[in-house]
Amino acid sequence: MIEQLRVKPGERVKLADWATDETFGWEKEEAKAELPRVLERLAELQSRLFAEEKRGLLVVLQAMDAAGKDGTIRSVFTGVNPAGVEVTNFGVPTSTELAHDYLWRVHAAVPAKGLIGVFNRSHYEDVLVVRVKNFVTKARWSKRYSHIRAFEQQLVDEGTTVIKIYLHVSKEEQALRLQDRIDDPAERWKFRLGDLEDRKLWPKYMAAYEDAFAETSTKQAPWFIVPADRKWSRNLAIANLLVKTLETMDPQLPPPEEGIEGLKVV
Amino acid sequence: MIEQLRVKPGERVKLADWATDETFGWEKEEAKAELPRVLERLAELQSRLFAEEKRGLLVVLQAMDAAGKDGTIRSVFTGVNPAGVEVTNFGVPTSTELAHDYLWRVHAAVPAKGLIGVFNRSHYEDVLVVRVKNFVTKARWSKRYSHIRAFEQQLVDEGTTVIKIYLHVSKEEQALRLQDRIDDPAERWKFRLGDLEDRKLWPKYMAAYEDAFAETSTKQAPWFIVPADRKWSRNLAIANLLVKTLETMDPQLPPPEEGIEGLKVV
Repeated sequence: MIEQLRVKPGERVKLADWATDETFGWEKEEAKAELPRVLERLAELQSRLFAEEKRGLLVVLQAMDAAGKDGTIRSVFTGVNPAGVEVTNFGVPTSTELAHDYLWRVHAAVPAKGLIGVFNRSHYEDVLVVRVKNFVTKARWSKRYSHIRAFEQQLVDEGTTVIKIYLHVSKEEQALRLQDRIDDPAERWKFRLGDLEDRKLWPKYMAAYEDAFAETSTKQAPWFIVPADRKWSRNLAIANLLVKTLETMDPQLPPPEEGIEGLKVV
Repeated sequence: MIEQLRVKPGERVKLADWATDETFGWEKEEAKAELPRVLERLAELQSRLFAEEKRGLLVVLQAMDAAGKDGTIRSVFTGVNPAGVEVTNFGVPTSTELAHDYLWRVHAAVPAKGLIGVFNRSHYEDVLVVRVKNFVTKARWSKRYSHIRAFEQQLVDEGTTVIKIYLHVSKEEQALRLQDRIDDPAERWKFRLGDLEDRKLWPKYMAAYEDAFAETSTKQAPWFIVPADRKWSRNLAIANLLVKTLETMDPQLPPPEEGIEGLKVV
């Protein structure tokens, strides 16, 4: 299942051809019952990663508005010891952040050894919104793919596993979700008028994502496109992807200090 | 129950007189069944704090080795959205940290608005281990209580609620737990020979804690002494304390932007 989601190095994805409602043959109730079991395994693997304290795991989450970034983090990482998980939200850059290059704030947030770092948005915004809204020139953003490849390669070489996840929702599903936020007084605070401006730019965003995948889905730091119209299927797919990634890392408990066996505490 | 745990401003606690095995009339099975309900309420309050994004909550955890700091964080905060919780472990200071005053690294880790920050050890180590092991002179550490009061008062005045929790275990219970770590090959990596050195200094640590409580348990930033010989009782007491604290803060969902009601998404 996971291999279906991977963007192969050099592959040029047409997002319109990738299903947003694929459920991998799962039934809803079955998937919901399965999730806690997968998350238990995730929690166990994370506690080993934390104990080992030799490598980190960086999970980049990108998506259009209302595609479920916050919900994914809540659903997949609640249940994992928060001592081992660091979530970073990348919003509009602050003046201090803007006073530095665009990778500066990102590098500062990379997970330390033993941690899982989750980026809610990321440096990819610098080739997505920044490109779509012409915040910098094409001459400038077009060089960034190569910066990003080099940056992620360095992270991998120095012990951080990197996976990048795109939550793939249809434009129709986004409309339903935004409408729900507008109509429900308890959810209305989540809605911003700017969400509708971004929605008008949908085709430009899709083109920017497609270029980002083609340019930066490498063997070392792959992109995974997760169908996200169904929340229950999205959660299980991502939980499985994380478990698989950590199983491949196979973190080990550290050896005890010498001379402990047989000691008696008085 | 919570008021029993509070160290009143100016109160001089004799730790030997405070029970380590108090269970507040709870039965074990009843307490274990109750915990998930309290944690659900905690998760709900935390999501409101996160949405409100106006105030932070800082939870300082201090204790002797094996008293359950890690276990408390795992048991009480797993189940809360990790996007809203930041755990900081304060270990032996790095050379960069030592190149600054002792509050520098602590201030940098204070939770942002909307977050719960959990300190696993804290600036209190600078009047505990640092005092017990004479890392600095008495002339120096004795001034720190006043620094800490002023620092925490400033946090409170600027919108961070501060609570400080001491996990109170008996010396006998610590012996059992350390012995378990030594005897169990799967747990042995957690044991450090230095733990036994600290254990020999138990009376000096207790005296240092007692002074810290007397000097720094203020109305604004109180200490709570939680009996911690029984993990199930400790977890429920702390979960209740956190819920009570957040209920008093009473975070509110933010108002929506103007002009959203009735919009139709196209």
